[in-house]
Amino acid sequence: MKNILVIGAGRSATALIDYLKKYIGDKELQLTIADADLALAQQKAGNAGGRVRAISLDIFKEEELNQHISQADVVVSMVPAAFHPLVAKPCISHKKHMLSASYVSDEIRALDEQARQAGVLILKECGLDPGIDHMTAMEAIDKIKAAGGKLLAFRSYTGGLIAPESDTNPWGYKFTWNPRNVVMAGQGTTARYLRNGEYKYVPYHRLFGRLEQIEIEGYAPFEGYPNRDSLSYLQIYGIEDIPTMLRGTLRKRGYCDAWASLVQLGLTDDSFKMEGLEGMTLREFTNSFLSYDPSLSVEEKFCRMMDVSPKSDLFKRIVWLGLFSKEPVPVSKASPAQVLQAILEEKWKLEPQDKDMVVMQHIFDWEEQGEQKRLYASLVSLGDDQLHTAMAKTVGWPLAIVVSLLLEGKIERRGVCTPVTPDLYKPVLEELRELGVTFIEKVVSVPAAKK
Amino acid sequence: MKNILVIGAGRSATALIDYLKKYIGDKELQLTIADADLALAQQKAGNAGGRVRAISLDIFKEEELNQHISQADVVVSMVPAAFHPLVAKPCISHKKHMLSASYVSDEIRALDEQARQAGVLILKECGLDPGIDHMTAMEAIDKIKAAGGKLLAFRSYTGGLIAPESDTNPWGYKFTWNPRNVVMAGQGTTARYLRNGEYKYVPYHRLFGRLEQIEIEGYAPFEGYPNRDSLSYLQIYGIEDIPTMLRGTLRKRGYCDAWASLVQLGLTDDSFKMEGLEGMTLREFTNSFLSYDPSLSVEEKFCRMMDVSPKSDLFKRIVWLGLFSKEPVPVSKASPAQVLQAILEEKWKLEPQDKDMVVMQHIFDWEEQGEQKRLYASLVSLGDDQLHTAMAKTVGWPLAIVVSLLLEGKIERRGVCTPVTPDLYKPVLEELRELGVTFIEKVVSVPAAKK
Repeated sequence: MKNILVIGAGRSATALIDYLKKYIGDKELQLTIADADLALAQQKAGNAGGRVRAISLDIFKEEELNQHISQADVVVSMVPAAFHPLVAKPCISHKKHMLSASYVSDEIRALDEQARQAGVLILKECGLDPGIDHMTAMEAIDKIKAAGGKLLAFRSYTGGLIAPESDTNPWGYKFTWNPRNVVMAGQGTTARYLRNGEYKYVPYHRLFGRLEQIEIEGYAPFEGYPNRDSLSYLQIYGIEDIPTMLRGTLRKRGYCDAWASLVQLGLTDDSFKMEGLEGMTLREFTNSFLSYDPSLSVEEKFCRMMDVSPKSDLFKRIVWLGLFSKEPVPVSKASPAQVLQAILEEKWKLEPQDKDMVVMQHIFDWEEQGEQKRLYASLVSLGDDQLHTAMAKTVGWPLAIVVSLLLEGKIERRGVCTPVTPDLYKPVLEELRELGVTFIEKVVSVPAAKK
Repeated sequence: MKNILVIGAGRSATALIDYLKKYIGDKELQLTIADADLALAQQKAGNAGGRVRAISLDIFKEEELNQHISQADVVVSMVPAAFHPLVAKPCISHKKHMLSASYVSDEIRALDEQARQAGVLILKECGLDPGIDHMTAMEAIDKIKAAGGKLLAFRSYTGGLIAPESDTNPWGYKFTWNPRNVVMAGQGTTARYLRNGEYKYVPYHRLFGRLEQIEIEGYAPFEGYPNRDSLSYLQIYGIEDIPTMLRGTLRKRGYCDAWASLVQLGLTDDSFKMEGLEGMTLREFTNSFLSYDPSLSVEEKFCRMMDVSPKSDLFKRIVWLGLFSKEPVPVSKASPAQVLQAILEEKWKLEPQDKDMVVMQHIFDWEEQGEQKRLYASLVSLGDDQLHTAMAKTVGWPLAIVVSLLLEGKIERRGVCTPVTPDLYKPVLEELRELGVTFIEKVVSVPAAKK
């Protein structure tokens, strides 16, 4: 009997596990759900019967980890990204396939030759972003190239957002994912992309002002800001000659301007602990990032610094966060980013009935038989509830599908790779479509002037 | 015969060594100048005779280092700040005093008890800034307190600049010190200070816009931007109750606005290597930090982003750097900060006849017998030539003076400390005044409204 081992039973593993439980059905298969927290593993295993079992597993105990991997046929690693090498190495020595949704690190990439020699597949970046983005992008790129088209531009945006029915605040945003990642988004380097043959660099403090307006029929308008490094995808996608290449993150329209004002103030800095937070009001907290001027109110100083009117939506969003209120700062001995996160965790909290939404849009421009065309390929995936979120489904399903394909002997690729080749993306996308993860495609002709 | 060991014979050690050579004169003293580069040590030793000798010393060779320290009575460490613990530890075990101009690190501070038990002085922050700033600030603070004054504000600015006679460019600046430190100034955290009882935080991207105008009679006007952490000085100076405390860096007026525009562009980021620099012009380099808009020139995009006129001094300063020229980018595979540094090293190069200038101003506000007073204490020190710079003199002389005081048995303090106590600052400042390092003091009455 073949055995599937899932390591890590957290939030993002729910849809993966549900899919696999259904998949094993009456087949000669076993599913082992491992987590350092046995109760969590048991909860996810549910009462599906003898062929689904929950175990306690500490990945830092080498012997324990080796034992369980040696008993598996395919391993899905849902542990935090930094710990994937801990799992990948024993997978290779025991000749077991390993799948994960996180980025290929240099350390994992270096295992390629070993993995090939062991005859195993180490598949990374096989979730949503990275994952579905790679697969759908490559499908479109390969199709355009096959038709003799010449690629001119590729822009791609993804966002983990709140469903329209749960969108009840002026930011159009709630925490459907790790709050710290949202507060720290974009920090630490300069975003880089390619626009009509020009390299473009946007430092963090201007990142949320370099926006593209994105529309998807039936939904409120979105906007996207550039991700850290779009340039590395030129090679990954084999489109080194393309003049425009940008990957970005989607928010509902209006979010980025308001977020940019928090960045301008300095509220996202995580490099030092603030003084005197105990007994400080949010109004005083905000004022500490504005210049000293007793002739102006905190609101007036904010509006002057940001060059906005007190009637602007931007200002209203900041007011709604309570940053001018006399409420106490919710944490003490914290960095500005930690204070902001604590404020947002209260304001952007998911309510029990709230549903999330994953949105992705690819925009391809190409020339085909003297005509310039544009493809908009858009995905909107809605969560069912707080457990079966759109994020968990779109991250977990691609992994689960590859597990099934591997067990059925339908994937021959070996070594360290990502799902950018047709042997991988075709069967996965086909199955995803059956599960309702479908891109709406629209092709338009672009007048030459609009290049 | 007592022996003074100077470790590190670089640029900033010149005035120190010259002072000590003159000091030993006919006394029963020996001066040993040690450097990894023997030729440099020999050059600084000159032909002063048998009691001044140059040696080659690699501080990473423990045995060698121990041997030389064991033969010394006082050690002056001019090695890079990070390596001071390497020198301090053998100094304590061999019971030798050690002096340096760099900041007390946590690692050095932890040696206090050991140093006391060994009966040695580990004196840090005894150069210009930190050093002369501490000494003159504490002299003024102690005087105001002794007269029953209540301190209301202390602001202090220091700058390593170019002498007026050598000020030949629109920035009023040349590299008289480490270029990389100038390019990286202020990065990595948020500046913090205290203003009328309010904590104030300024993130890096706004740092060069939070300016105070500083005037010193007889010199072109200056401006100062806040240093990283003014708050830690409240405790160091024993003025925890003061409502206003700010330390900053001085530049000639106009520099900061223009520098702020380079920060806005993103040119000071050192976190990644840029693509395609080979064959790129400076104009294209600048354009890569501006948004894509073929309807506008690079200059127009710059002026719009910064909200300045092409006739502004700011714009003229950027033009003067050549950032809109068709000159090639001077380096390839470099970060934006490395490109900027290469440009500036050419533009802000010291000419052989150029002289530097060190400027410091303390501004104290206090209440004394119902009256509010303000003291401006200003120092301007000019370099003699490229070897005997103002920076080398003001960094090296305080150290050299403490060496002489120690050898004459005039300093009883032991343990890890900085020159903030009268037993240290009084004799050093007295001698510095004789050497021409003199603060011009001006006391004015401040109307209550101007508080």
